[in-house]
Amino acid sequence: MAVQPKTASSSRSLAQDRIGRLRLGFSALKADALLVTHLPNIRYLCGFTGSAGLLLVDSARATLFTDSRYTFQAREEVVGARIRIASGGLLAAAGKVLKRHRRLALAYAPSQLTVAQLDALQTAIGKRIRWVKAPNAVEHLRAVKDDSELAAIRDAAILISNVFQQMVPKIRPGISELDLSADIEYAMKREGALGPSFETIVAAGPRSAWAHARPSSKPLAKNELVVLDQGAILRGYCSDMTRTVFLGRPSEKVRDMYSAVLEAQAAAKLAIRPGATAGDVDASARKVLKARSLARYFTHSTGHGLGIEVHEIPRLGRGDKTVLQQGMVLTVEPGVYLEGLGGVRIEDDVVVTSNGAVDLTTAPRELLEL
Amino acid sequence: MAVQPKTASSSRSLAQDRIGRLRLGFSALKADALLVTHLPNIRYLCGFTGSAGLLLVDSARATLFTDSRYTFQAREEVVGARIRIASGGLLAAAGKVLKRHRRLALAYAPSQLTVAQLDALQTAIGKRIRWVKAPNAVEHLRAVKDDSELAAIRDAAILISNVFQQMVPKIRPGISELDLSADIEYAMKREGALGPSFETIVAAGPRSAWAHARPSSKPLAKNELVVLDQGAILRGYCSDMTRTVFLGRPSEKVRDMYSAVLEAQAAAKLAIRPGATAGDVDASARKVLKARSLARYFTHSTGHGLGIEVHEIPRLGRGDKTVLQQGMVLTVEPGVYLEGLGGVRIEDDVVVTSNGAVDLTTAPRELLEL
Repeated sequence: MAVQPKTASSSRSLAQDRIGRLRLGFSALKADALLVTHLPNIRYLCGFTGSAGLLLVDSARATLFTDSRYTFQAREEVVGARIRIASGGLLAAAGKVLKRHRRLALAYAPSQLTVAQLDALQTAIGKRIRWVKAPNAVEHLRAVKDDSELAAIRDAAILISNVFQQMVPKIRPGISELDLSADIEYAMKREGALGPSFETIVAAGPRSAWAHARPSSKPLAKNELVVLDQGAILRGYCSDMTRTVFLGRPSEKVRDMYSAVLEAQAAAKLAIRPGATAGDVDASARKVLKARSLARYFTHSTGHGLGIEVHEIPRLGRGDKTVLQQGMVLTVEPGVYLEGLGGVRIEDDVVVTSNGAVDLTTAPRELLEL
Repeated sequence: MAVQPKTASSSRSLAQDRIGRLRLGFSALKADALLVTHLPNIRYLCGFTGSAGLLLVDSARATLFTDSRYTFQAREEVVGARIRIASGGLLAAAGKVLKRHRRLALAYAPSQLTVAQLDALQTAIGKRIRWVKAPNAVEHLRAVKDDSELAAIRDAAILISNVFQQMVPKIRPGISELDLSADIEYAMKREGALGPSFETIVAAGPRSAWAHARPSSKPLAKNELVVLDQGAILRGYCSDMTRTVFLGRPSEKVRDMYSAVLEAQAAAKLAIRPGATAGDVDASARKVLKARSLARYFTHSTGHGLGIEVHEIPRLGRGDKTVLQQGMVLTVEPGVYLEGLGGVRIEDDVVVTSNGAVDLTTAPRELLEL
């Protein structure tokens, strides 16, 4: 079965471009080749979406190793790499190819290779290889999105914004967190998403103070904060948006919390521009919350990169020195969590442009009283 | 916030029992302690369901390391372990505790620790530790389910069987694979599941020959095989069931394929009993398909363990020597895939009893012509 003719040519040049840019980094790494083990990286470089794969990129070629479950799928999807169907394990098959090279300097990402995998490769290859640690070689490429990626993320962001708007009438006392999260995920798919980019969070009342609560059978009740954190996968790319609503008339304390978080988010967005550091953005959000005496209740970082995965580099964390570049896509999501009372988090996806941050998510940000 | 009083006593004894049984294995490993890095193992041992955790079990105590996002959640969930909220990374915090022990033999699972994590631990601890490779120490405990686990898996299996039955009227020409998978996942949640235990597979026509196809926007069409592979998470446990249907009147060839796979599945189930090996079960399925000249189109193993994760040990693969035990839960899922024509897979979940395999999934297995 041949590569699908309709998209082959543009996909092929895209894949070659990405693999080519990856190779440009080899000399700085003092590496002859890179072993790519992380599936989203493999997908980025050659288009393969199966659940078992290894991609070996050397100076001459790229080779995808997968298993027989993916024979047909790999033939349809893979561009810019040859395909090897391994029968005795992918690592052993890659090891056999690598064994032919003498004195190869092989780069790999230490956070994406287990000790067991390294052992297996070393057993297969012997001592001929010099191992080079190369964290984030592919992730650095992925951090700056090209036009087709930006279009996919923008569409995923608009989709999730529309889904949230559709859901607003359902966010009422009585519905359970689980039922509401099911409705949200179903609506995403009806709108064309492959599915959620992470398990949808619906957390009400005191549970909204758990920054990463899983939805429970708890019904929403009057006079509660409700945090809704949701994202969709569209054309292989993720969105990620949080809104917090109040069921009833919020107290002054809740209003203050909400306006502080919204102000912190606006400050963080304003700090985003090419050349700023990730830590600058985080500090801008934290400064606002400090002035409102809420900084110690902001227990996570301000945001993260977004793309094929829902968490990518850079991390908008305290003191992070990563320099922002045009084309990066980031979440901006400060939050404040008060045990017993609940939490407020407001999250948008933005793209870094020469004019600063441009919002991709479009749902209104004022406090909804439902 | 105290541990919830209602369930504390039974949860506590369960956690202590599991951690106690884990400790019984330390002497065979020549280890003083085990560092548990895999989240489903952490959940099994102490109940924590957050997305960031490390559990250190030594002879005297168990300590869960997590971060400030999970402060409240850990207090509510964790039983049988003390909680440490780490501010500078979980590995660094665990390293600090481990540094106090001199000449500790620390076991870990090499397939669940990355090279980067091992580096970070070694940096934090120095040379005081002897590292002991202990693959699957917790997984071996988890392979044999206790009564509460069996009840959860049975309920998850019944749930997914009922969902499939509800969906049968929707499996018609015109609906897209994606829309049908969305309907299936929504129905699971309406029935009380937390969500799917893996991305639901709906693959029609030639795509049904991709054993692990992702659903696409392709509409189902007349005279096609449709493989539907779905599972639900209920009370933290997974089910996993596949049915294959035909839209229209199947040809003799399709009927033959189907009956061969069904016969292979029945043979595999008959081979399941305490004392048999996983490889025996796989061989029984393969033997049937060989007699029907279809063995070379059966491109994966016959099944796998099922529990907190959708893929657990044992693997019912060729030559696997793992001895089956009472209380194990297994999938039995032979399949045949013909490029161009499509695939047939029939999968049930079974529990190993002294009387052999007992089905947990209940949807009918005869070929549905829709």
